[in-house]
Amino acid sequence: MSQLKIAVVGLGRMGKRHVHTLLYRVPRAQIVAVCSVTPHEVEWATANEEYKEFNIAVYSDYQEMLNHPGLQAVWVSTSTDVHASQALAGIEKGIHVLCEKPLSTDLEEAQSVIDAAKKHPELKVMAGFSRRFDESYRDASRKIADKAIGEPFLVRSNTCDLLDDTGFFVRYASRNGGIFVDCAIHDIDLSLWYLGNPIPKTCWAVGTLQHHPELKQFNDVDNAVGVVEYWGGKIAYFHCSRTMLHGHDTATEVTGTQGKISVNLIPRQNNVVLADKLGMRHEVQPEYWQRFEHAFALEANEFVESVLKDKPVPLPLETGMMVMKIGRALQDALLSGQVIRFNEAGERLN
Amino acid sequence: MSQLKIAVVGLGRMGKRHVHTLLYRVPRAQIVAVCSVTPHEVEWATANEEYKEFNIAVYSDYQEMLNHPGLQAVWVSTSTDVHASQALAGIEKGIHVLCEKPLSTDLEEAQSVIDAAKKHPELKVMAGFSRRFDESYRDASRKIADKAIGEPFLVRSNTCDLLDDTGFFVRYASRNGGIFVDCAIHDIDLSLWYLGNPIPKTCWAVGTLQHHPELKQFNDVDNAVGVVEYWGGKIAYFHCSRTMLHGHDTATEVTGTQGKISVNLIPRQNNVVLADKLGMRHEVQPEYWQRFEHAFALEANEFVESVLKDKPVPLPLETGMMVMKIGRALQDALLSGQVIRFNEAGERLN
Amino acid sequence: MSQLKIAVVGLGRMGKRHVHTLLYRVPRAQIVAVCSVTPHEVEWATANEEYKEFNIAVYSDYQEMLNHPGLQAVWVSTSTDVHASQALAGIEKGIHVLCEKPLSTDLEEAQSVIDAAKKHPELKVMAGFSRRFDESYRDASRKIADKAIGEPFLVRSNTCDLLDDTGFFVRYASRNGGIFVDCAIHDIDLSLWYLGNPIPKTCWAVGTLQHHPELKQFNDVDNAVGVVEYWGGKIAYFHCSRTMLHGHDTATEVTGTQGKISVNLIPRQNNVVLADKLGMRHEVQPEYWQRFEHAFALEANEFVESVLKDKPVPLPLETGMMVMKIGRALQDALLSGQVIRFNEAGERLN
Amino acid sequence: MSQLKIAVVGLGRMGKRHVHTLLYRVPRAQIVAVCSVTPHEVEWATANEEYKEFNIAVYSDYQEMLNHPGLQAVWVSTSTDVHASQALAGIEKGIHVLCEKPLSTDLEEAQSVIDAAKKHPELKVMAGFSRRFDESYRDASRKIADKAIGEPFLVRSNTCDLLDDTGFFVRYASRNGGIFVDCAIHDIDLSLWYLGNPIPKTCWAVGTLQHHPELKQFNDVDNAVGVVEYWGGKIAYFHCSRTMLHGHDTATEVTGTQGKISVNLIPRQNNVVLADKLGMRHEVQPEYWQRFEHAFALEANEFVESVLKDKPVPLPLETGMMVMKIGRALQDALLSGQVIRFNEAGERLN
Repeated sequence: MSQLKIAVVGLGRMGKRHVHTLLYRVPRAQIVAVCSVTPHEVEWATANEEYKEFNIAVYSDYQEMLNHPGLQAVWVSTSTDVHASQALAGIEKGIHVLCEKPLSTDLEEAQSVIDAAKKHPELKVMAGFSRRFDESYRDASRKIADKAIGEPFLVRSNTCDLLDDTGFFVRYASRNGGIFVDCAIHDIDLSLWYLGNPIPKTCWAVGTLQHHPELKQFNDVDNAVGVVEYWGGKIAYFHCSRTMLHGHDTATEVTGTQGKISVNLIPRQNNVVLADKLGMRHEVQPEYWQRFEHAFALEANEFVESVLKDKPVPLPLETGMMVMKIGRALQDALLSGQVIRFNEAGERLN
Repeated sequence: MSQLKIAVVGLGRMGKRHVHTLLYRVPRAQIVAVCSVTPHEVEWATANEEYKEFNIAVYSDYQEMLNHPGLQAVWVSTSTDVHASQALAGIEKGIHVLCEKPLSTDLEEAQSVIDAAKKHPELKVMAGFSRRFDESYRDASRKIADKAIGEPFLVRSNTCDLLDDTGFFVRYASRNGGIFVDCAIHDIDLSLWYLGNPIPKTCWAVGTLQHHPELKQFNDVDNAVGVVEYWGGKIAYFHCSRTMLHGHDTATEVTGTQGKISVNLIPRQNNVVLADKLGMRHEVQPEYWQRFEHAFALEANEFVESVLKDKPVPLPLETGMMVMKIGRALQDALLSGQVIRFNEAGERLN
Repeated sequence: MSQLKIAVVGLGRMGKRHVHTLLYRVPRAQIVAVCSVTPHEVEWATANEEYKEFNIAVYSDYQEMLNHPGLQAVWVSTSTDVHASQALAGIEKGIHVLCEKPLSTDLEEAQSVIDAAKKHPELKVMAGFSRRFDESYRDASRKIADKAIGEPFLVRSNTCDLLDDTGFFVRYASRNGGIFVDCAIHDIDLSLWYLGNPIPKTCWAVGTLQHHPELKQFNDVDNAVGVVEYWGGKIAYFHCSRTMLHGHDTATEVTGTQGKISVNLIPRQNNVVLADKLGMRHEVQPEYWQRFEHAFALEANEFVESVLKDKPVPLPLETGMMVMKIGRALQDALLSGQVIRFNEAGERLN
Repeated sequence: MSQLKIAVVGLGRMGKRHVHTLLYRVPRAQIVAVCSVTPHEVEWATANEEYKEFNIAVYSDYQEMLNHPGLQAVWVSTSTDVHASQALAGIEKGIHVLCEKPLSTDLEEAQSVIDAAKKHPELKVMAGFSRRFDESYRDASRKIADKAIGEPFLVRSNTCDLLDDTGFFVRYASRNGGIFVDCAIHDIDLSLWYLGNPIPKTCWAVGTLQHHPELKQFNDVDNAVGVVEYWGGKIAYFHCSRTMLHGHDTATEVTGTQGKISVNLIPRQNNVVLADKLGMRHEVQPEYWQRFEHAFALEANEFVESVLKDKPVPLPLETGMMVMKIGRALQDALLSGQVIRFNEAGERLN
């Protein structure tokens, strides 16, 4: 059996999880290397027993890692600002790339990755949108395709993260492009998926700072509401938050002419309910990792399969471009207070 | 418009609530009198502003109350041990009777009320089984009649009360006939209703004392599980408890050959959910009153209408006899450890 | 006992229900008259056995009804366009008025009712906002006051009605002021209640027509999403719909710095769940009447009590003015595509 | 890295799934062989592309498979009647054994496996009780250990399988020992786990045949209710069913002196809810596989780890003996109608 030799760059919380996923969930992949430019992460990885057990080489230089003998693919899991350059470097080396969303907060830079990928049709290049691989979201998609709700015309979606009081989030926030680019991007993608790739017409947004006043310096907020009107009478609206107390609360509703589908309206950690003096309660998944762990495994398996069997990647790289365009427009609306408008070709007018 | 002149005997927690129901929910009844033999209840009622406002006479002698000018009906809401004698006294006086369940913990005494009622077909005499008037239980009944679950063959039902640490419950328990007679009686009734009045074949029960060791002196327990096998391959099983911490938790499941109906599997105080550091939680109704308040109102309205329009009472008085018979058998099984058996005519064999 | 003699004007679906509420739920009120200008409603009421039984006079002329002997109060339950004139006529006659929301779709006309009420402090004049009397919404309010969610800063609320294919709704729509005035008004009111009466700063809205193209002629839509930014970093956003297939779906979420409270996120008809080949399902209340029946009863009781005991009405008449102002602004934003702005005094700037 | 060379015997529905689990979820195991005595299963396995890809040898003779070069462990996933002999054969060969529950429906035969394992302390021998590895059941266990419900004293648990109309189940039933041995065994195990390994005192059971009359010939039923009273005032009661229409419905409630914990009271396929003309509904996992897929993966990983690191198996082999003893007693009670009694040492008295 031939396994795909793959590496993970970035060993933050998600990078470590991706290593875990590759080890435990993707039998056709062999993780051969990891890389981080953060000294304490390199140190941590070097000392890690499991990494030793599975012969995972640890690099502190990305270019060096790309030269790892036999390396075929890389999973880019760094901060958003280096996604594009690392993806491009991989492509140049003839390495398949699975890149965390978004390719870039800069639309031109993102386009440069797409252009590079087009020049290398022999390489599989994909941007990860984990919800596209989630069992529930896929079930919703199937039901919508089966006309269970008639014609879908309205999406409500929220991505609300657990409050992080450690300061980690705020440090990270300086490089993520703002709440609509970093957080609502999944919700925007879902609206495009479920509404049949409509073209944006107008959008508007408002926000507020409730827990992280430091975000003001990055032109960002910790709670925001945005609305997108699409051409053809379709609408999506979003709530993003960094300040939940009960856990990661991500819900989506799709309304159609004959019904409504909801996904995860009541988030749950597991099947346990405790009844006591306080009433009846259940816990909630703390992070999107717990919510989407199995989706990440499926994503990795499907990506690896697309490489090994030379099939199209499960999600075209271009998918993310319109998402980013809308995310940026919402972020601009948030900052300017202005309605952002697009023409029927989806070109932004202001 | 002619209103039915009615009185309530018994001013414990439920008696007061029945007065409230008659005042606020039953426009065709006029509550004209209340009665209690407990001095502090009489005192309380005498001082009650609302009772004065609505001209409700207060009696400390039941026979005197029966002589209240123009009195037409009485709602018996005393402790179980005097239900039968008070019902009989009412019947003798030519007064319509709505009696809280059960008529008596003694089957012969209960039969004597039925016999007396039969001799007075001009009087409406009914034993209250509040769940029969509950919107959800009625909906379940309609769905079962419509064959939504095929042929029903199994009932699971529990009646679990909030723990009462005040000592009130234990005092009351000495006269209630035991947990299966007092508490499971509703569940047994539901099983007869939903399974089409099957005949009991065998039953068995076990119990335990967890919070109220004083119940031992009354040959009772505070948690019990009982199973009834009916002739014809039908089964019901029950859990009764006096020791819930989260509220009144009463659930029923009816399984049929083509599906299952559940009623109140997740008890809720209202529609509010609180999400905070503990997860997501809702409160639970503390007592069966909150759960069945609207059922009591419907019961009273239907009883009053049966009198005013001379229609059959909504629930035949005999209904409760088989329920009591099974309740007593379960209580006996609980105490003896023996399986109690019935013949196909429903006559008890041991 | 002295009962308040009250009449109901308007015998549409809600008018009939208000009569029922007064008969069955409000013992201190005596409904003495009803009035409708619609011949078939007058005919229906004249023939109604229950109305005869309770001696309810039927009028086809509102002024005549106001002259009914001894009449003390009127419940205005007509179409929105005559609320104000009927309320004013009642006030002039020295009659207490409980008026369905809104007083008027015209802010000046609504103000004229408030002005008239101020000139007659001996009269109780109230606009009905039924949710303010709902057990769950009140529980949420208590919990918020108790700081269960810290400082509330975000409200999401939707009012989604069952699709009406009979044409009734569209006929009614011509006079209701548009979806944000007729439907979101409750949600707007909730946002003001829960956020501590904040002042609007900006708002924007979009809409679509999915089932009722005829609404276009009334400048209306059948689904709309609106966002209100309040001064002080508070936000509310709304979805209103006329096109639900599963029932009346009204949910509200209030997010604060320390938690989130939701009301009715999963609407339910009752406690019944049916499990069969299709999975597990429950039914949903078809109309807001089923959802808010008990709230209407409480509202009527509290209003009647405020008259009989000469106490302030439970909800000041002015409450509705800011609600209407925001409702109109959202409706204007919907039509114009423009962001509507207010100054810090709440005065509209465009 | 050294992987544990493991084989799976039995290629029915579960055997295939165990192969899948080993391939996709257990990186420290290498599945090297499978075995089945059923020709069409052997044929299927031989033709299977994935098995070829991963170099899995296919055997039709169990002894031959045990001789597979380098084989270290076997996962016994055959029908219950050969579990013990295959486990014993493995032990004799010096092969570690993970055996599906129960070791045997015959208590003496089961004991012989335990005895053999004791003689070979160098071998890891474990009987699989998948629920012990389920995240929710483990969370419940932790919460109980943390006294979240005070002292646990009552367990209700049901294992209700989707109706199988293909005839597969009935064929399989002839060798599974009866509904309480095959199906309730998990629920019994949970009651022992959560109640602190209490000793049975009495038990009783009833059953009915609703869909599979052919089971009568095997002295079995398709729905059964059983009650176990443990010494020390603890109780467990169970419902097993083969006839659910909505899916695999497995729920457990543990009641303690200070609260109640429930696991999976509302079974769900995923997070999707569909709202349409029928109300609101969700689908249910069809089989225990979907419910316990991740538990099987954890079980396999923990077993493999216990071998590779020479640690105790996560679940002592003896655990299953008391479970089987109670299961057999319930099955006997079901058939005889008699109460089965045990002394305080857990020795059966009748």
